[in-house]
Amino acid sequence: MNNLINGGFEGKIYPVNPREDEILGLRSYPNIAAMPETPDLAVIVVPPKSVLEVVRECVRKGVKAGIVITAGFAEVGEHGARLEREVLDAARAGGMMLVGPNCNGIMNPFEKLYVQFPPYFVPPGPIAIVAQSGNVVDALARQIMLRGLGCSICISSGNEADLHIEDYLEYLAEDPHTMVILGYTEGFKAGKRFFALAKEVSREKPIVMIKPGTTPAGARASLSHTASIAGSDAVFEAVCKQSGIVRARNLEDLLDLGVALLRQPLPKGIRVGIVTGGGGAGVLTTDACAELGLDVLSLPEETIEELSSFMPAWWSRSNPVDLVAGSSPDTSFRAVETVLRCPIVDGVIMMSIMPALRLKRPPASADEADRRRWGDNLVKAVVNVLERFGNLADTYQKPVVVASEQMFADAFQEARITQALGQRSLVCYHMPHQAAAVLAGLAKYGSYLQRYGKRK
Amino acid sequence: MNNLINGGFEGKIYPVNPREDEILGLRSYPNIAAMPETPDLAVIVVPPKSVLEVVRECVRKGVKAGIVITAGFAEVGEHGARLEREVLDAARAGGMMLVGPNCNGIMNPFEKLYVQFPPYFVPPGPIAIVAQSGNVVDALARQIMLRGLGCSICISSGNEADLHIEDYLEYLAEDPHTMVILGYTEGFKAGKRFFALAKEVSREKPIVMIKPGTTPAGARASLSHTASIAGSDAVFEAVCKQSGIVRARNLEDLLDLGVALLRQPLPKGIRVGIVTGGGGAGVLTTDACAELGLDVLSLPEETIEELSSFMPAWWSRSNPVDLVAGSSPDTSFRAVETVLRCPIVDGVIMMSIMPALRLKRPPASADEADRRRWGDNLVKAVVNVLERFGNLADTYQKPVVVASEQMFADAFQEARITQALGQRSLVCYHMPHQAAAVLAGLAKYGSYLQRYGKRK
Repeated sequence: MNNLINGGFEGKIYPVNPREDEILGLRSYPNIAAMPETPDLAVIVVPPKSVLEVVRECVRKGVKAGIVITAGFAEVGEHGARLEREVLDAARAGGMMLVGPNCNGIMNPFEKLYVQFPPYFVPPGPIAIVAQSGNVVDALARQIMLRGLGCSICISSGNEADLHIEDYLEYLAEDPHTMVILGYTEGFKAGKRFFALAKEVSREKPIVMIKPGTTPAGARASLSHTASIAGSDAVFEAVCKQSGIVRARNLEDLLDLGVALLRQPLPKGIRVGIVTGGGGAGVLTTDACAELGLDVLSLPEETIEELSSFMPAWWSRSNPVDLVAGSSPDTSFRAVETVLRCPIVDGVIMMSIMPALRLKRPPASADEADRRRWGDNLVKAVVNVLERFGNLADTYQKPVVVASEQMFADAFQEARITQALGQRSLVCYHMPHQAAAVLAGLAKYGSYLQRYGKRK
Repeated sequence: MNNLINGGFEGKIYPVNPREDEILGLRSYPNIAAMPETPDLAVIVVPPKSVLEVVRECVRKGVKAGIVITAGFAEVGEHGARLEREVLDAARAGGMMLVGPNCNGIMNPFEKLYVQFPPYFVPPGPIAIVAQSGNVVDALARQIMLRGLGCSICISSGNEADLHIEDYLEYLAEDPHTMVILGYTEGFKAGKRFFALAKEVSREKPIVMIKPGTTPAGARASLSHTASIAGSDAVFEAVCKQSGIVRARNLEDLLDLGVALLRQPLPKGIRVGIVTGGGGAGVLTTDACAELGLDVLSLPEETIEELSSFMPAWWSRSNPVDLVAGSSPDTSFRAVETVLRCPIVDGVIMMSIMPALRLKRPPASADEADRRRWGDNLVKAVVNVLERFGNLADTYQKPVVVASEQMFADAFQEARITQALGQRSLVCYHMPHQAAAVLAGLAKYGSYLQRYGKRK
């Protein structure tokens, strides 16, 4: 309730509690029957053994939707599973839909509806999260905020007694605020429906997913967490491939890829050109790309020649294109553009934006104001560099994934840069393996859309 | 030279340049012969075709050590390779040791000797970096700074014409400031010596390494970067196993593990207990551990019973130990201690410190000063939680690896927390896969030391 109030919800809020007349400044009702009108949504946070009765009361009042945050159902064994079925039966008999139980609730930032239990408020934005684990929702939502972005909705689906991931997907497909869907599921209750739906939704907006339980130990853990049967990992892998779901290997990949899909054009194939401000980063990126099935191709002679026309004489004359010390700031952009223009290149990874920046640092004698100004200029300069790479990507309709060492070893400055970029749906990854994973994910999704066509 | 001056070097600096009388306020000499004394170290940044002559001049002057930052040698083909050999011959004939060529130079923070070309200054600390790639040195050093830590030395070894990674290892083994060695190599020039040396050094301090070129494309890229022959990946894997080198899969793993090795006791085996503030994080961690060969074991009945004596009734009664909502802050510490105490557990991963914190947030009405105070308290509280887990690790001589979602979605606050932790060699990782990779790395190194014994 605190979150609902602090989040700025503009509708009416009715606390219900048998012992209090007033809660957080609002008049409280002893039971649902006593409420002056039928609410659109009931958020249920009573102890597990009272949930059934509350749902029955809601049904009698005509409530059509509820979120059961309470845990202690199917995830704790047979007794809880029975209770969960009874709750479900009561809700369905009364035409009431349920989120949960055993979940963290929902955040809908566009409606200022924050009915989740952790006390933070994701701003509105283009990313939807639907996860069976409340703390995975948290981890993702907080990272999205740290990256300067926001969410269309965050759904902690819990045990999915009534509403399943399929139902949420169906909703998100039509939600105009949602541009990309990040999902975490520990198992499916209606696998065939999920598959059929994902195939269609993927043609409209990208779905990036994690499904743990890939190992026997992980499968056991998910059984005790959300009572999910992990099922065969090979089957899920095949489902992803055939339904256009991009599978992430861990939460970082999930985020990295989700953010990339907001803005990057999709590659038409797996052939990648690497332009790098540092040789080691080039080698690491090459390995990471090759491990993920991307082709760090040999550039054709005419592309090499064109690069040679403006690169320092001692450049590597191969892919990765190593900018080497002594390149002018403009060389980065020209090199990326030259490689992008090459017809057999499907996308470019640009490693290290340092050569493109060439910012003077403040002298040791600089005062606070000088340093602040320098910091402001740096943020602008980095945003400008990323915008320019983004524009090249738009022009050639090929992705340009940029990654760079964290540049100034100043955590506060880095945080400012990340936020400023995020606000423009831009991102500068840090590590070679991140850039490779993002491009590999984009290529997978691109290949699905090429096969099945994008839906308008 | 700018870095050397700004870094606060306390020895004498002699610029040498044929055209200037004064450089950055220092008297400059037209050539090395004209210098008033023999320097301890020559830093050579002349164009490639002049390097040979400069090295000859140094030898005539009696200079015993040089760093050749200049590129354009073996990495650019046969002509450069010949030049490199000539430089090497001239240096060796005169008893002069060389770092490089084709490198970024060296940072030795304890001596305030910053003779590298990028303009930043790593503070002194316990981590040594030796990498064939200057930009890998940069990426690592900057990350170390962002994490609130420092370096004993940062060596960009470049083409390794004279001094090889083996020589640096030999030095670092005896360097009293170095507690852990992070290495990046694209290939070996004296593989047998490296192997023999690594076996010994590993018994004294941990070596964590990345060797790219694991794929044919990566191997080609490293050939053009530092003229390195990548060699067989399987051979390097075997070398690591038999010499106690912990191999990292990417730069993030390298850092994560390096930092862990500063403070964590080593596990005696691969059996891991997971305590988690969130079910999803528990499942993801379980999968990540199992994928890396760790055993997320079934806890014995007496440990389950002991946990049940203080955990909420509906807890999972299995490993991962899910703290579930409703646990008191102290439950996190008691749960970790109970699992640590279990004799068949070798180490613990603690996911999410939120349940251990339970900090009140400032009310919406809080002013700037209230928020600053709240922020200060939060930093202290997080440090305190990590210290307590660190103390448990010390008491039971088993590692406790802590990871937590980024907690307050405030980038500046997160940066402060990270720095405060780093200054105490503490670390709170963010993601499940990071925690698993760290524990797996610790287990590998622990198993080596168990077999061969730690050297005093």
